[in-house]
Amino acid sequence: MIYFDNSATTAIYPEVLKTYTDVATKIMGNPSSLHNLGTVAERMLEASRKQIAELLGKSASEIYFTSGGTEGDNWVIKGVAFEKKVYGNHIIVSAVEHPAVKESANWLATQGFDVDFAPVDEKGFVKLDALSALIRKDTILVSVMAVNNEIGAIQPIRQIGELLADKPTISFHVDAVQAIGKIPLADFLPERVDFATFSSHKFHGPRGVGIVYVKKGKKLQPLLSGGGQERDMRSTTENVAGIAAAAKALRMTLERSQANLTKLAAMKQVILDALAAFSDVIVFTKTDDFAPNIITFGIKGVRGEVVVHGFEEHELYISTTSACSSKAGLASSTLVAMNVAPKFATSAVRISLDESNNMAEIEQFLTIFKQLHAKFQKIQ
Amino acid sequence: MIYFDNSATTAIYPEVLKTYTDVATKIMGNPSSLHNLGTVAERMLEASRKQIAELLGKSASEIYFTSGGTEGDNWVIKGVAFEKKVYGNHIIVSAVEHPAVKESANWLATQGFDVDFAPVDEKGFVKLDALSALIRKDTILVSVMAVNNEIGAIQPIRQIGELLADKPTISFHVDAVQAIGKIPLADFLPERVDFATFSSHKFHGPRGVGIVYVKKGKKLQPLLSGGGQERDMRSTTENVAGIAAAAKALRMTLERSQANLTKLAAMKQVILDALAAFSDVIVFTKTDDFAPNIITFGIKGVRGEVVVHGFEEHELYISTTSACSSKAGLASSTLVAMNVAPKFATSAVRISLDESNNMAEIEQFLTIFKQLHAKFQKIQ
Ligand SMILES: Cc1ncc(COP(=O)(O)O)c(C=O)c1O
Ligand SMILES: Cc1ncc(COP(=O)(O)O)c(C=O)c1O
Repeated sequence: MIYFDNSATTAIYPEVLKTYTDVATKIMGNPSSLHNLGTVAERMLEASRKQIAELLGKSASEIYFTSGGTEGDNWVIKGVAFEKKVYGNHIIVSAVEHPAVKESANWLATQGFDVDFAPVDEKGFVKLDALSALIRKDTILVSVMAVNNEIGAIQPIRQIGELLADKPTISFHVDAVQAIGKIPLADFLPERVDFATFSSHKFHGPRGVGIVYVKKGKKLQPLLSGGGQERDMRSTTENVAGIAAAAKALRMTLERSQANLTKLAAMKQVILDALAAFSDVIVFTKTDDFAPNIITFGIKGVRGEVVVHGFEEHELYISTTSACSSKAGLASSTLVAMNVAPKFATSAVRISLDESNNMAEIEQFLTIFKQLHAKFQKIQ
Repeated sequence: MIYFDNSATTAIYPEVLKTYTDVATKIMGNPSSLHNLGTVAERMLEASRKQIAELLGKSASEIYFTSGGTEGDNWVIKGVAFEKKVYGNHIIVSAVEHPAVKESANWLATQGFDVDFAPVDEKGFVKLDALSALIRKDTILVSVMAVNNEIGAIQPIRQIGELLADKPTISFHVDAVQAIGKIPLADFLPERVDFATFSSHKFHGPRGVGIVYVKKGKKLQPLLSGGGQERDMRSTTENVAGIAAAAKALRMTLERSQANLTKLAAMKQVILDALAAFSDVIVFTKTDDFAPNIITFGIKGVRGEVVVHGFEEHELYISTTSACSSKAGLASSTLVAMNVAPKFATSAVRISLDESNNMAEIEQFLTIFKQLHAKFQKIQ
């Protein structure tokens, strides 16, 4: 089997799973417990926090744990909005955000907040001038993702940071779920970013563990109220084994990242070159300012799910853009925001590569692609 | 080492950890993915949901997964409040709820909801007449826990259900986190209960997995908005391995529960009998209508943490009532609600037993207790 759906989720590294089982077996205490077993668990928790902070170039006191990217996004969007309600009720999120951000913003709109969606250009990049024009006196939050999950567009986070440089009262959130190991930290964690969210299962860590960066001094209300864990910002008995495993996955991913990027870019280029030969194939993913692991394309007149199932018969797994929208049969909301005509948008499929993939798999993909393409042409 | 802090957290069953690692290794797909790997993951997810539903005597469509007891409590309390805001803004929670419920209610109070705390009697049981008197025309939610985590009091859930029988517009939530395997399902999941919350790590399952029962037709708003997982009620890529492991832990716990209850009650009785011989020991936990695994007591004039650390030196682990409040050095909020004088409340420690404990450990506990007691008397 060939797995080209790594933006949906990645396989847990065996070493990471071992960390999980080791910690789950040996460190059973509740970090809040007063006794030794609690202290040992707390130490492991704090060591993981410190390691993650160092890997991200931040302080341990700026790192919080959640249950995943979605909780992180919900926490930041809703938590900042409720915290800053007294100062203003306008928030801006980009038109190509993941539903975790978009639906959080939509929910806030039902609670009296004013939400604007910053448009993107035809390539999928947030338009800086349009974003700038949306900013108001009562804007409290801007949220733009680092790497788009449907086409891989790398958003201009640094430029948006510069745009917000003289507006310190606006919180700036970056959904970095698809960015880890794919683009340099400096490109999505510049100093101006106040909040960033991550999800462990996107970088070979366990499911159900997320990381949130909250810049020192930046405030938000908790989403999970309760026993006061995570410095009273996110209550629940801490998933120490999952967190330790996530820390390990982050370390391994970042350590391997430099070598992987070259490999990913080379594999992507082979696919792009091959697809360019087909006049009825539209490629939505370019190379400049796009993540090296994602290629989104469509065969004109063939629905994305037909292509997915075609590859599936060969045990080759790709996706109709995001996993979330796939079952609903919806067109990619990113492509819609890019003004791609619905008939093309519904043709889109996403290949998302991983370091574990290799050129032989790429060749196999292209062989199958040619077969399928010929078959689809006959049917039409 | 002797672990008597099982209400704080339990050791994961080795068989449960094996399920986790098996599923994490073999079922790597995202349940939302359109292809085979997604379908296989979804099937495992739904099989776990069905198993849990059957174990709880409910339908699979009534079972949702969260990251733990805290998220479940927050979701139900806040989600029901926002959903039913148009009908009323009054909610009632008992005065002895876990902070996950209490702080959720307190947060709602900052958002314009009216919150009342239903008082308990001197034993720690919610007073039915007082609760009844608090109910108003605009009451939308009543939340009372099944088993109190600090003293083990079993709340009169069935009677409260009867009280609410002719008030169908009031949602009834039960925090059942401490109840699983400790008291019969019928005692805390009668038909009138609309929502119930559970946490896997309290019954030998993995951390970071919670279960919420939502009765058919009962509505609440999502706490985690996003990609639409869990029938659009709780978004995020599903932690399939964790959920499958939680299902197994629930099955094992409930299967063993009958035999365990007898064993737990016998161990508890030996401790209660021994403590009764000390005139300066106050026992807060009785036997009738108290969970068979919890014994909360205090030595007059000796702070709880001193007792905890005394036992710790013998590698015997107990707790100052709840793990959450322990580090803050706060008196148990349950004892405060019971009108226990602060000087006695701060003396409280909690023993929470598990099936894996045995009589030899109980004997050892009592031997150490006698030594410590003699030592404390000298110091005073
Ligand atoms: C950009 C982005 N944000 C957020 C999420 C949500 O992450 P999780 O599934 O961990 O909740 C995802 C993936 O599903 C994503 O791709
Ligand atoms: C009664 C009760 N409710 C809720 C919780 C919270 O559960 P969790 O730690 O899984 O968030 C606990 C335990 O901490 C509890 O004892």
